Amino acid sequence: MGSAGGFIRNTKWQIAMESLIIIKIGGNIIDDEKSLHSFLQSFSSIDGKKILVHGGGKLATQLAQKLGIEQTMIDGRRITDAETLKVVTMVYAGYINKNIVATLQANGCNAIGLSGADGNAMLAHKRNHPTIDYGFAGDVDTINTDFLSALLEKNISIVFAPITHDKKGQLLNTNADTIAQELAKGLSKQYTVTLIYSFEKAGVLLDINDESSVIKTINWEYYQQLKPSPSGAGGKIFAGMIPKLDNAFTALNNGVNKVIIGKAEKLKELINGSSGTTIKNE
Amino acid sequence: MGSAGGFIRNTKWQIAMESLIIIKIGGNIIDDEKSLHSFLQSFSSIDGKKILVHGGGKLATQLAQKLGIEQTMIDGRRITDAETLKVVTMVYAGYINKNIVATLQANGCNAIGLSGADGNAMLAHKRNHPTIDYGFAGDVDTINTDFLSALLEKNISIVFAPITHDKKGQLLNTNADTIAQELAKGLSKQYTVTLIYSFEKAGVLLDINDESSVIKTINWEYYQQLKPSPSGAGGKIFAGMIPKLDNAFTALNNGVNKVIIGKAEKLKELINGSSGTTIKNE
Repeated sequence: MGSAGGFIRNTKWQIAMESLIIIKIGGNIIDDEKSLHSFLQSFSSIDGKKILVHGGGKLATQLAQKLGIEQTMIDGRRITDAETLKVVTMVYAGYINKNIVATLQANGCNAIGLSGADGNAMLAHKRNHPTIDYGFAGDVDTINTDFLSALLEKNISIVFAPITHDKKGQLLNTNADTIAQELAKGLSKQYTVTLIYSFEKAGVLLDINDESSVIKTINWEYYQQLKPSPSGAGGKIFAGMIPKLDNAFTALNNGVNKVIIGKAEKLKELINGSSGTTIKNE
Repeated sequence: MGSAGGFIRNTKWQIAMESLIIIKIGGNIIDDEKSLHSFLQSFSSIDGKKILVHGGGKLATQLAQKLGIEQTMIDGRRITDAETLKVVTMVYAGYINKNIVATLQANGCNAIGLSGADGNAMLAHKRNHPTIDYGFAGDVDTINTDFLSALLEKNISIVFAPITHDKKGQLLNTNADTIAQELAKGLSKQYTVTLIYSFEKAGVLLDINDESSVIKTINWEYYQQLKPSPSGAGGKIFAGMIPKLDNAFTALNNGVNKVIIGKAEKLKELINGSSGTTIKNE
């Protein structure tokens, strides 16, 4: 097709669908006030439509400890009993969410904080696991794209807390990675969506101990070589990355344009492609 | 003019401005789960545009106690140090706000929970008192009527938590009565606003010990007879009602159509005028 054909396709694409950047920040950023403020400054300076999804960091665990509410984690997931749900609702949808929104406003970025109950933004159901009772943990069913895009069209950035609801009056603790993925998939019908997962590493590493071994781009074909064989043998990348990458390809298979994995501190570089790992479906 | 003239005026009014009902619920309703659920059912069944403003009840005080954060009240106002601000942000904007929104959604009422930081809905400044340091307490400057009316026009009911911000990144604890009044005044340019203050009494009472002594209607002229003389002598109503009534007349002098004071349990009767005290400016 050559560059002229590519140029025309790109132009048409841009006219048809506006860009939307969805960024998930991990707990390590939220736990460090200086890092968080610096990240929120970078986030504010991004042109165009954007959504921030935040987890809870250590604050919920610390508050639960102070209140004498025992916390149980299974495979990195919090077992959410009624008292723990109270704590995460207070910390995630209250303290963290409103402080992020106030800081964005101070940086000139008009933002709104949402839980899944607000505007019926995200509907979920209580997890039904054959062997483990996760308590009030939510698995996402649908998102309210009309409501979310109406806010984005008013140039209001959305700050999503990892709390959803079941429309029967029950709030549900919901994984922030999943929330980011669901928002990305659901909104990709209206926008060209870039989904950014930020975490403590510089990207997907060929050598877990070498921060300079970041893989620049991973497509489906390359991913088959990188991951362990179905028997679990071999594999060139850290096993902990596999769920993140599986998630990324699920998003790409559901209309998301691009997934980037890297350090929140390098937000601008992640967006312009000079840092982190870009996952693409082609 | 006669009834025909009145009818014509009323008709024009209804075409020009839609009705908006703003209801402030007090802590006694929030503290009692059954009362709250019953109130939220009534609220959901109100036709048309509506806003709910909630206080915090005893939950914030209880949480502060559990965390060993000492609470100081001066004239019924909480002194908000940094740790207390954390607590009220968690309880008001997190736990209470999101549970109210989830319950409204379950009742088929599409609602969104807001603090003043969300969508820059309500801007305030840290109270500057000559003798008392109220800490992070906010006095309201402006409300974002464009944002709020855009939500109302989408038939989304607003649930406002008593937390505002200063657009410099600081959240502020703000009196819920004041928030309700500011919303009512600011939105009265676009809507015919009825402001309802619900509390534990049936209305403004002639005899504080007799719940059947509710005064049906108070206008400015009658209020002059009811309240104590400038010297503080006399007066037919309980002195504690004076600030509420002064607030009501301030609202009426700033475009609010009607103020009703009464019991939250009687929401429908308050709206149709068969319960509570109606304050009018004519």
